[in-house]
Amino acid sequence: MPRITIGKGDESLIIVMSATASPENVAHVVQRLEDIGAEAHVSEGRSRTVIGAVGERQTVEQMPWEAFSGVERAVPVLKPFKFVSRDFQASDSVVEVGTALIGGGHLAPIAGPCAVETRDQLFASAEAVARAGATILRGDAFKPRTSPYAFQGLGEKGLELLAEAREEFGLPFVAEVLDPRDVELVSSYADLIRVGTRNMANFTLLSELGKQTKPVLLKRGFTATIEEWLNAAEYIYKEGNHDVVLCERGIRTFETATRNTLDISAVPVLKGLSHLPVVVDPSHSGGRRALVAPLTRAAVACGADGFMVDVHPEPENALVDGAQAIVPDEFAELMDDVRALAAVVGVAV
Amino acid sequence: MPRITIGKGDESLIIVMSATASPENVAHVVQRLEDIGAEAHVSEGRSRTVIGAVGERQTVEQMPWEAFSGVERAVPVLKPFKFVSRDFQASDSVVEVGTALIGGGHLAPIAGPCAVETRDQLFASAEAVARAGATILRGDAFKPRTSPYAFQGLGEKGLELLAEAREEFGLPFVAEVLDPRDVELVSSYADLIRVGTRNMANFTLLSELGKQTKPVLLKRGFTATIEEWLNAAEYIYKEGNHDVVLCERGIRTFETATRNTLDISAVPVLKGLSHLPVVVDPSHSGGRRALVAPLTRAAVACGADGFMVDVHPEPENALVDGAQAIVPDEFAELMDDVRALAAVVGVAV
Amino acid sequence: MPRITIGKGDESLIIVMSATASPENVAHVVQRLEDIGAEAHVSEGRSRTVIGAVGERQTVEQMPWEAFSGVERAVPVLKPFKFVSRDFQASDSVVEVGTALIGGGHLAPIAGPCAVETRDQLFASAEAVARAGATILRGDAFKPRTSPYAFQGLGEKGLELLAEAREEFGLPFVAEVLDPRDVELVSSYADLIRVGTRNMANFTLLSELGKQTKPVLLKRGFTATIEEWLNAAEYIYKEGNHDVVLCERGIRTFETATRNTLDISAVPVLKGLSHLPVVVDPSHSGGRRALVAPLTRAAVACGADGFMVDVHPEPENALVDGAQAIVPDEFAELMDDVRALAAVVGVAV
Amino acid sequence: MPRITIGKGDESLIIVMSATASPENVAHVVQRLEDIGAEAHVSEGRSRTVIGAVGERQTVEQMPWEAFSGVERAVPVLKPFKFVSRDFQASDSVVEVGTALIGGGHLAPIAGPCAVETRDQLFASAEAVARAGATILRGDAFKPRTSPYAFQGLGEKGLELLAEAREEFGLPFVAEVLDPRDVELVSSYADLIRVGTRNMANFTLLSELGKQTKPVLLKRGFTATIEEWLNAAEYIYKEGNHDVVLCERGIRTFETATRNTLDISAVPVLKGLSHLPVVVDPSHSGGRRALVAPLTRAAVACGADGFMVDVHPEPENALVDGAQAIVPDEFAELMDDVRALAAVVGVAV
Repeated sequence: MPRITIGKGDESLIIVMSATASPENVAHVVQRLEDIGAEAHVSEGRSRTVIGAVGERQTVEQMPWEAFSGVERAVPVLKPFKFVSRDFQASDSVVEVGTALIGGGHLAPIAGPCAVETRDQLFASAEAVARAGATILRGDAFKPRTSPYAFQGLGEKGLELLAEAREEFGLPFVAEVLDPRDVELVSSYADLIRVGTRNMANFTLLSELGKQTKPVLLKRGFTATIEEWLNAAEYIYKEGNHDVVLCERGIRTFETATRNTLDISAVPVLKGLSHLPVVVDPSHSGGRRALVAPLTRAAVACGADGFMVDVHPEPENALVDGAQAIVPDEFAELMDDVRALAAVVGVAV
Repeated sequence: MPRITIGKGDESLIIVMSATASPENVAHVVQRLEDIGAEAHVSEGRSRTVIGAVGERQTVEQMPWEAFSGVERAVPVLKPFKFVSRDFQASDSVVEVGTALIGGGHLAPIAGPCAVETRDQLFASAEAVARAGATILRGDAFKPRTSPYAFQGLGEKGLELLAEAREEFGLPFVAEVLDPRDVELVSSYADLIRVGTRNMANFTLLSELGKQTKPVLLKRGFTATIEEWLNAAEYIYKEGNHDVVLCERGIRTFETATRNTLDISAVPVLKGLSHLPVVVDPSHSGGRRALVAPLTRAAVACGADGFMVDVHPEPENALVDGAQAIVPDEFAELMDDVRALAAVVGVAV
Repeated sequence: MPRITIGKGDESLIIVMSATASPENVAHVVQRLEDIGAEAHVSEGRSRTVIGAVGERQTVEQMPWEAFSGVERAVPVLKPFKFVSRDFQASDSVVEVGTALIGGGHLAPIAGPCAVETRDQLFASAEAVARAGATILRGDAFKPRTSPYAFQGLGEKGLELLAEAREEFGLPFVAEVLDPRDVELVSSYADLIRVGTRNMANFTLLSELGKQTKPVLLKRGFTATIEEWLNAAEYIYKEGNHDVVLCERGIRTFETATRNTLDISAVPVLKGLSHLPVVVDPSHSGGRRALVAPLTRAAVACGADGFMVDVHPEPENALVDGAQAIVPDEFAELMDDVRALAAVVGVAV
Repeated sequence: MPRITIGKGDESLIIVMSATASPENVAHVVQRLEDIGAEAHVSEGRSRTVIGAVGERQTVEQMPWEAFSGVERAVPVLKPFKFVSRDFQASDSVVEVGTALIGGGHLAPIAGPCAVETRDQLFASAEAVARAGATILRGDAFKPRTSPYAFQGLGEKGLELLAEAREEFGLPFVAEVLDPRDVELVSSYADLIRVGTRNMANFTLLSELGKQTKPVLLKRGFTATIEEWLNAAEYIYKEGNHDVVLCERGIRTFETATRNTLDISAVPVLKGLSHLPVVVDPSHSGGRRALVAPLTRAAVACGADGFMVDVHPEPENALVDGAQAIVPDEFAELMDDVRALAAVVGVAV
């Protein structure tokens, strides 16, 4: 018959003792758990003792158990994030971005130039993506660049042009913010504020975004695990801003045939772990024009709530990331496929 | 006006000299190129000299240029593989596996149990996947296991059961071979021979497979670049066996939410580089039942020529990889989606 | 005889045309290079044309060549960073941190608690590391934490305690800054300002640090290549602050036996590429107490200019990273080994 | 007071149920554990139930628990390997290779050419490394090459030359085996048989090596975790061959500045987990001549039982891996450093 022990707090942590741990080592861990108000469910096998720590998770988890004598490792039972988890909210979140919806059966095509370069370039792109069926315009005014010598964006002038394009073509827009000191500025213009991949773990910036009211598109750090990404979303959410959209954009791997490796599995994995909408950026993950259409189709087919692609009227003249931009005609063709696929998977576009 | 120099061999290698290279270092490299019958196209800038080596590529590439004084690095211009490249054959290869076709617009659903365990288990799975529309049966008789203490497969008895199932349900089958000494045995039973991920760079095994006549399904090493994978295919192809199908099955990354990270971009990348068919294994990449259907849909939507899924009548009792197997009803539903998606992307299933 | 073409600018980029590129494609690339004032050194082989682009590198490199028809890829010849390279300065930089020197034959042992928790904890640690021979004290007042629910540091109070400890034990100190708005504050207290691994690509923060006068310890992003890391150093350097020390602290890989994989090869690689001093953090890379001493010995033996270790009087009670802290007695023993190894490799400690 | 439950088998597995698991799901898992003769130690918290499975580990671990309804994940408590672990044997293994010893305080310098090319080349290298103090000669007769068009080794002729060099210079030698059908041949010549990085998970080859009597040098798969590597060693050990030496040679990461990333931490990690000797290959990990000496020094300082370096009399003419070979004079200088470092860390060389 099974031996059942019922605890009053959360089953927070499993502490595995080493084969050479002494009874005193075990007793010491148990004592410290009790000192902090937790229970220890001790299970002994022939070669190892395992302790289930049941109590208030933050109290239990912040202790450096692996620094204790005789402890081999401590395995967390619960995920570190709370509010963004499916456990906390079972139904899909739907995020409103101006006139567009993302999530809960609403697919959002987001398109436009990588960076705002000129009025003509932006308007040519915006006109084309609006006509083909995009519901949100993309375009950046601030660009983080690996090299300090590369084009860094138009700044506020770029935001003004985006606002003009919104008026002209009826599309809400998304733009990136890099600096916590610019949050207010970007928030005063944009409909959706993007956190770029390099800033996913910029907790200072995330906290500021949690305190303003515009929805946030949180790109995955290209080296972040899904769990770290959801922790970053939690930083924003817990400050009061619940309109967070996740954006998968490829991770860094050993493969060099693509700029990054699009982690398409992240879409269904996130659907299981979280209620937040998930969109995919096939342009920045692949880094090549020829990959944009097939990866967008993959994203829609596997259940993404949207996708974001770079569309440039003249990629040869792009100041940023021209190699991955598609042209307006390619985008229009892609949208035909997207509509057909959306019908198969049962989402509205 | 541009300065044009025309060479008689292939533009094989670019040799970048370091900033501190002396004229003698440059002259020495040039001399060695000429010694081996190649030409040196020397281009000098203010801070660096670059030498284009034009000649028979194998001769040029096998020299250890980076061991020469003053050489910073040597960049190959050409891909290391030849016969499997699109440059060599522009049209898609179509591979015949018994009654089934893979590639060139023919989508192959491959399904069945991970390992053959019993006659009942195999037949229940085979009957279900045949009825739902699979065109090739999967099932292994030899299993490579990380732990020496795990179930290693039924051996020849498993192959006999697979041959029986072929008779009964009219499906050709694919099975793995692990040992070069077993190639003849597996080849005498199977319609398609699989090289597993751990053996992708087992050149001894690849050479043997190149000498027999059954088609080969070459899984990507979970740590292999796409270029290394195509090199492995070249090992088979150059021995005379041109019926090679590539199978993407996920790569090893830092992400632990999935067993491996399915590199979905590999599908369109391979379509550009090679004429060989490409199938996707969503079961082994994701490692979890809930991911199988969305990843299969993604594979079909982005242009794969087939997919291979584990279907087990009772996953709880599976001896190998039960956590990732779907049940017959789930497979039947998935096939409905597959047919709808195939219509959108224009392939026959 | 080799064909030599001499250009007037830097040999900046090699543009490899695809096998199917037309003469018009080649001519178009050549024309655009000439339009921007660069030269094109065209080298034709049997199957490929390669164009060496010689001109002002920023002008040449910012064009999206891979978006041009017929271009297969563009390979940069020069490294993207300038001032931090050995090409720019051949001799080792030596950075002064209060009374301590780092680089150019001066080995700096940096030690102390991960986070400042209390006056007693800080002083116990500082007293011990000063006595054992550390030349710089570590201790943080601001902690970036993956989880929003973890201890975030004492803030300015922590900096005050560190300044007190400096007075008491005669050790300059290093502390982290997270937010560009805190740079002035941290700079007013600390002798060396640390940029943590998550902020290595926070270009906003880097620019601010380039404008103040305290030396900067730039940790490697745990997912940054060495080239990206040197680009980040360049961001600081080009703003006028030349006192930059690099700190290797492990990179993210598939291996889970350690928190991160210490990239020990980065030390000799950086010694070749850059004149900046390099230190190693064996505590955060290994993540485990038992690894600290062997990895420190490895760092010193392979030529690092310093190392930084967490020393805590009572690791079991540490609020941050207790599992990787060593105790004062272990640090004293380690310093004996360090002195013996320093004698072998010929550096002063 | 802690609740203690004592089991009769090994504490094998921890089964974490999901937040939505029903009491029936829990009961079903418990029932199946009892069916297979194991005990279930059930610990319930507010949001999760955790089941400690205590019983015969192979029986418990081979069940596909993650395929059971309500199971979130199953965490193994024990390492999958047994005989090669420190738990099984507390004292260091010492492996005899002809006249040389590896492990337990004996440091083995292994050196020679990457591949045997000619009698002159081999003998020049062997003479030099013997004189400088190497205790084992390296040189390969069979080479696995990524490209099917590269030099594949001299075969048995190479082994004959190595045996001649052994006579002439008094050094036992290590050579690689690629094919299970060649094990007998290589075993009849070599003193130590090497399994290359691409074959670490070639279980067929490992089993054959476990059945012969020569010691085995098992290189780490460049994409293998330390745990998988020890599993591979277990394959050899459990067949009866206990003379296994582990060789760290770098892992595949995103960093491209080096051929592979030497995982120096693997040395102390293995010293904790296993009693087997560990050597380091700085030539193949770094891939560059300038890195060989600093990485060798790091290996010795951090506790490796040996190191293996490529020494070639004329790297410019090497048929394989010339860029990473050092010349005889460099090896002699390196050996001086090695002797000084060995004295510091207390090992005999």
